[in-house]
Amino acid sequence: MTDTATGFRGIVPYLVSPIDPDTGEVDEAALRALVAHLVEVGVHGISPLGSTGEVMLLDGDQRRRVVEICVDEAAGRIPVIPGVSSASTRAACIEAERFADLGANGLIAIRENAYPVNDAGIGDFFAAVATSVELPIVLYTNPGLLGADISAAVLDRLLEIDNVRYLKDASGVTGRILSVINRHGDRLGVFSASAHIPVLVFQLGGIGWMAGPACVIPEASLLLYELSQAGRWDDAMALQRRAWPLNELFTKYGLGPCVKAALEVSGFAVGPPIAPTQALGEAPRAQLRAVLGDIAEAVDQLKEISS
Amino acid sequence: MTDTATGFRGIVPYLVSPIDPDTGEVDEAALRALVAHLVEVGVHGISPLGSTGEVMLLDGDQRRRVVEICVDEAAGRIPVIPGVSSASTRAACIEAERFADLGANGLIAIRENAYPVNDAGIGDFFAAVATSVELPIVLYTNPGLLGADISAAVLDRLLEIDNVRYLKDASGVTGRILSVINRHGDRLGVFSASAHIPVLVFQLGGIGWMAGPACVIPEASLLLYELSQAGRWDDAMALQRRAWPLNELFTKYGLGPCVKAALEVSGFAVGPPIAPTQALGEAPRAQLRAVLGDIAEAVDQLKEISS
Amino acid sequence: MTDTATGFRGIVPYLVSPIDPDTGEVDEAALRALVAHLVEVGVHGISPLGSTGEVMLLDGDQRRRVVEICVDEAAGRIPVIPGVSSASTRAACIEAERFADLGANGLIAIRENAYPVNDAGIGDFFAAVATSVELPIVLYTNPGLLGADISAAVLDRLLEIDNVRYLKDASGVTGRILSVINRHGDRLGVFSASAHIPVLVFQLGGIGWMAGPACVIPEASLLLYELSQAGRWDDAMALQRRAWPLNELFTKYGLGPCVKAALEVSGFAVGPPIAPTQALGEAPRAQLRAVLGDIAEAVDQLKEISS
Amino acid sequence: MTDTATGFRGIVPYLVSPIDPDTGEVDEAALRALVAHLVEVGVHGISPLGSTGEVMLLDGDQRRRVVEICVDEAAGRIPVIPGVSSASTRAACIEAERFADLGANGLIAIRENAYPVNDAGIGDFFAAVATSVELPIVLYTNPGLLGADISAAVLDRLLEIDNVRYLKDASGVTGRILSVINRHGDRLGVFSASAHIPVLVFQLGGIGWMAGPACVIPEASLLLYELSQAGRWDDAMALQRRAWPLNELFTKYGLGPCVKAALEVSGFAVGPPIAPTQALGEAPRAQLRAVLGDIAEAVDQLKEISS
Repeated sequence: MTDTATGFRGIVPYLVSPIDPDTGEVDEAALRALVAHLVEVGVHGISPLGSTGEVMLLDGDQRRRVVEICVDEAAGRIPVIPGVSSASTRAACIEAERFADLGANGLIAIRENAYPVNDAGIGDFFAAVATSVELPIVLYTNPGLLGADISAAVLDRLLEIDNVRYLKDASGVTGRILSVINRHGDRLGVFSASAHIPVLVFQLGGIGWMAGPACVIPEASLLLYELSQAGRWDDAMALQRRAWPLNELFTKYGLGPCVKAALEVSGFAVGPPIAPTQALGEAPRAQLRAVLGDIAEAVDQLKEISS
Repeated sequence: MTDTATGFRGIVPYLVSPIDPDTGEVDEAALRALVAHLVEVGVHGISPLGSTGEVMLLDGDQRRRVVEICVDEAAGRIPVIPGVSSASTRAACIEAERFADLGANGLIAIRENAYPVNDAGIGDFFAAVATSVELPIVLYTNPGLLGADISAAVLDRLLEIDNVRYLKDASGVTGRILSVINRHGDRLGVFSASAHIPVLVFQLGGIGWMAGPACVIPEASLLLYELSQAGRWDDAMALQRRAWPLNELFTKYGLGPCVKAALEVSGFAVGPPIAPTQALGEAPRAQLRAVLGDIAEAVDQLKEISS
Repeated sequence: MTDTATGFRGIVPYLVSPIDPDTGEVDEAALRALVAHLVEVGVHGISPLGSTGEVMLLDGDQRRRVVEICVDEAAGRIPVIPGVSSASTRAACIEAERFADLGANGLIAIRENAYPVNDAGIGDFFAAVATSVELPIVLYTNPGLLGADISAAVLDRLLEIDNVRYLKDASGVTGRILSVINRHGDRLGVFSASAHIPVLVFQLGGIGWMAGPACVIPEASLLLYELSQAGRWDDAMALQRRAWPLNELFTKYGLGPCVKAALEVSGFAVGPPIAPTQALGEAPRAQLRAVLGDIAEAVDQLKEISS
Repeated sequence: MTDTATGFRGIVPYLVSPIDPDTGEVDEAALRALVAHLVEVGVHGISPLGSTGEVMLLDGDQRRRVVEICVDEAAGRIPVIPGVSSASTRAACIEAERFADLGANGLIAIRENAYPVNDAGIGDFFAAVATSVELPIVLYTNPGLLGADISAAVLDRLLEIDNVRYLKDASGVTGRILSVINRHGDRLGVFSASAHIPVLVFQLGGIGWMAGPACVIPEASLLLYELSQAGRWDDAMALQRRAWPLNELFTKYGLGPCVKAALEVSGFAVGPPIAPTQALGEAPRAQLRAVLGDIAEAVDQLKEISS
């Protein structure tokens, strides 16, 4: 597995969590089908249990089952990097150890914001998670959704821990990424979330895109990455412009429900979002179909040109 | 148990959750001592697993143990009204049924805000919790902490469910309480949270005070309530003014850590807040001591006058 | 003029600013009619150029003309306390001196929030306005609308200036008023804004109500105040409950447009709100008529009982 | 003046407003020296009276004087595009006409957010300003500072007005710019504000950078633009990375005070920010000196390579 040897990079889709709404059971067949498809298309890793995976709506058993299935289905061909998401330091550490035992190749450390915590507490949380395992850690920051940030001082502290290796910034403020790369680019790999324009983050020196949309359009996402790696910025940007309406729909309709609906219209029966989140109606699905069709067309055009 | 027969009312302290920081075990002795003390002083009910109880930092086992101990120690003398707190509808219903089985006398329904949910989803969540049990339900709304509210339309919908009987408003905007009582005062009992001035809420027709500070100053809280019930508004307000600095400290230092520190300086060894929340230092503790001393003095003065 | 001799207190309506939308001229007749009516009903003062007066939409000439007319029409019978509203320290001081020269009896100091300012700058602003005149100063704080607050430390600093005598709190968080009165009640008179429930603020020791609704229901407002002064809290609260739906409409539809519409349905032709604010449609006007009718009925019932 | 013939584009520095703190007079010599310098360096336009120009702290006379001096000193060599900034539709239109009469070549329409306004009112405001003059209009949107946005529906409406030609987006969320360019790129020229990374906005199809930092580092800004125009993205990005710390300081210390301090340490005696804004202390000035030195070095290195 070259990727984990040299480090994570590239297109790492955030997976949805297919859950039976009545029993609460993970729909193993649906999840396996999705993972198999993504491996086949050639993504560089997969990340279950992020915000696209509705992690904050899953209990411990559901989370464990999701990781088990992903690890088994990926079978070492690409790294599996699940989110460890909790408000409690102790619970996060227990989950981190559990996922390491299950065979995860890295972890995304997500601090849910329950009660006000100062920088000392925020630093303690991430430091405890990182030191509870030997896996490479991706720090996750999303001040808009989670209501609390990783300050520059806390980041400095965390970078003293060897296996803190990556940052996933979901702030939407692209200038923050440049600030971090300027300061820590030689030490820390920065992944774009779907709140940013991935091609621009690649240009800033970002090493990849970890996001829900990549779960729906893995081919286009890989092409964006490859064009960027090849320095074909104009082609990359042309594709990016065509792909951007999908991001707009995710922002408008919510990550979990929108990726699940997009996968369903693409033939993956991943089921409805987890209650109380509401499923998308027919009008948003029609918008998704149109946008996905246009992106597929853009990919075909670019591949024709390239061949 | 007259109280549950006629309905909840009065002073209902929010309990802290004493947890061993190393093992994660509930400190049974500390919790029993606190409950026994509150029963003895004469509070009208107790409410574990609210924000003062750091509920969002506890796992399912810890929550269950807290309820078991409270129910056992209260032994039917006063109602036990735990919080059921989750972002997931299904998880909340499972927990509600569990607490009903454990002998809880009512439930506070708390919707944690994980991902954006519309009014239909918010209504579904509370409706599902309420209909999963036969216990009286206290709706909880705290837009500041939890980031989402119960709109007037959602409240109308929920009031069609028989056992939705109470509202605990933690918004801090006292005018909201008057609006609700004007509209639903004959159907819905409104409890003040510590974000409001309880004597004023009593005057608006509020039926009680459910809050963390009542855990620390149960005698003063009961006196506030009794003076208000007796229409002795000037005496009630005089005491309220003396007690208010405790609310200011809770706001400044955070509910869980501040109530735990205040209990510790009062002789209850409830331990530190749950990580990553940081324990209060010596300076805030000194402030707490001073304020608690002044409140005790105010209570003594009022009792002398009354006797 | 007993009131200004002993200090401001009681019911001080915030006036609307009747402006011809085409010429931008102040409608002198409409403003005089409103002031004359309020003096006749017996309010304790009037306050033009607050948020109800759409002050931030008026230029210097319009503001001056409003103050001239109010001072002339009040003719020393009740104090005129206009708002001085600016983001610039220098502009605020110039306006303060101008209004003092025009015969204002006091000033409400309003700091518009243009660019980020630290506590030193906020303190400087209010200190400069206060020391630029000899009139009594009402500090205005409204963190929701204006985006910046007067911190406890800044308030301490400002209370070293003799003519800083009053605070008008428009935060909606009633606990803040208790905190201020506990700390500075012997030195500082606190007025309720319409964001609070006035009867409750009277009970906390607040000295009056400065607000737009009092412009529309001066009789009911005076009765609220008198019942509170007489310690008839139950009657005061009964009236308050009937009057509260008017506050709800102000919150819903915006102070300026709602007070102007309410005055129009009451027979005062004060014209539309200032562009780009939109005038209220027929449905909100119908709601206003219903609420005003109910308040008038409540006042009549209470007066009958009292006589 | 080729630029206005073909439309605005390129590097358009936002000017500071040098004001004597005692008299409130515009410091004509300082402003002329700054404009002359920028013309000489070769910027593509200048924009007085934006947020860098502390426009919300200036009265009508000060604003007029600033425009007169800029128009006179630019003398038709580059376009002068002042901000028209007001909460009131009528006041904004009067100012727009005044600046047109004074010889401005275009206007930036800034809606200050005083009281809540719906989309109809927001659209009315900008439509009225645009139709009050024949000059090309730059719409300005800055939801963070001004608290209200231009929605997609309002933008659609405004694009029916011929002279609405540009948008300056100061949101910091770069994805918004891609959305606008995707939808309206053939009709609307989009300028980056300093909240974005300008090279990335150029890559998205943005036509220029209107911002305060360009006032301090005009040579580096022009080089960024020229490298981008030439498709030399790697060089552009290398310079951008070196220049970015200046943006960080602007964000940290505030546009007006920071640009004024940066100009002072660069030899332009533009004076302190306008009260109540506080001037920067020695530590931030030392940081500015270091960053400006590094940027100058980066420019020299790039010019050497190119020559």
